Amino acid sequence: MTLRVLGVDPGLTRCGIGVVDVERNRQATMVAYGVVGTSPEDSLDQRLLVIALAIDEWLDRHEPHVLAVERVFSQLNVSTVMGVAQASGVVIAAAARRGIPVALHTPSEVKAAVTGSGSSNKDAVTKLVTKILRLDTPPRPADAADALALAITHAWRSGSGTANKGAATTGPGSSSLTPAQRAWAEAEAKARRAR
Amino acid sequence: MTLRVLGVDPGLTRCGIGVVDVERNRQATMVAYGVVGTSPEDSLDQRLLVIALAIDEWLDRHEPHVLAVERVFSQLNVSTVMGVAQASGVVIAAAARRGIPVALHTPSEVKAAVTGSGSSNKDAVTKLVTKILRLDTPPRPADAADALALAITHAWRSGSGTANKGAATTGPGSSSLTPAQRAWAEAEAKARRAR
Repeated sequence: MTLRVLGVDPGLTRCGIGVVDVERNRQATMVAYGVVGTSPEDSLDQRLLVIALAIDEWLDRHEPHVLAVERVFSQLNVSTVMGVAQASGVVIAAAARRGIPVALHTPSEVKAAVTGSGSSNKDAVTKLVTKILRLDTPPRPADAADALALAITHAWRSGSGTANKGAATTGPGSSSLTPAQRAWAEAEAKARRAR
Repeated sequence: MTLRVLGVDPGLTRCGIGVVDVERNRQATMVAYGVVGTSPEDSLDQRLLVIALAIDEWLDRHEPHVLAVERVFSQLNVSTVMGVAQASGVVIAAAARRGIPVALHTPSEVKAAVTGSGSSNKDAVTKLVTKILRLDTPPRPADAADALALAITHAWRSGSGTANKGAATTGPGSSSLTPAQRAWAEAEAKARRAR
């Protein structure tokens, strides 16, 4: 059984999107990736519309089992974080409208899952994503690599596309599931069975 | 000619919504108001979905010429501002999907337009909204009154119901006033000082 995850690294100027298929044995394969860009010169409503329409298209085309979005944090500067939060709201609502479950992961969770260290830099994430997905060239820009990393992280943390929770507690970067994560993984598995 | 404005005071827990019709002579009439509430116990995606579906319904039912949204600021605490920004993103994208222009106004712009002072409290705003709309009882909760105040503010600032779409499409809000809007705003400010 394959779990298809669409990862999104939200942003107004650049929204990274990546789709991966993850097998029971944790093997992850790249399906597609890209970036939706909008210009700071456009009005906020038009920028959010471009993102909304793009996400709709990606969700419709790739039909992921789950959407993984980077959890927005406040470490960024204030005006940036607003745009990131607004974009993430649009992305999350688009999945929710389709009944696609949404999972949030922090940047450090993603770094830990993919590189083994929660404090790795962007280059390390891109490098490991390239290796994990067995790509010939690194995904560019970094936002797209981050989106792929998010998707991989989600699949691995939620049990690498299997109902076997034990698998989630082994392997690089995966920590044991919290009760909430376990409940989430079970709901997700149920949702997949319902399809 | 009447300008119909749908105002939204965005929030995850309570999203105030208010619709007003504003005539050429600045007379404003309440069409409808309400609040969309979501529980902090629900997941973020389900909360944003509830808001998205509610906004869709309000836009479809009332067919406003323009959507006025409160500009999100960072003075709030960080976790609150994230939810507010995410909700506002969903609301703005819903209007943009329908080709409805979106305008942003700051809380102090709203207070200034409705009460004459940018530092008025919520009670003063509710009181003046009640008076301006000639209502028998104050709109409750305060979020709904704020949404109505936003709608009134937008109509008044954009030339009180001239249905001039150009004036309404301020994108990032009041910073991009047309010369007519600026003249109007200045006249308004002068009138307030004269009181």
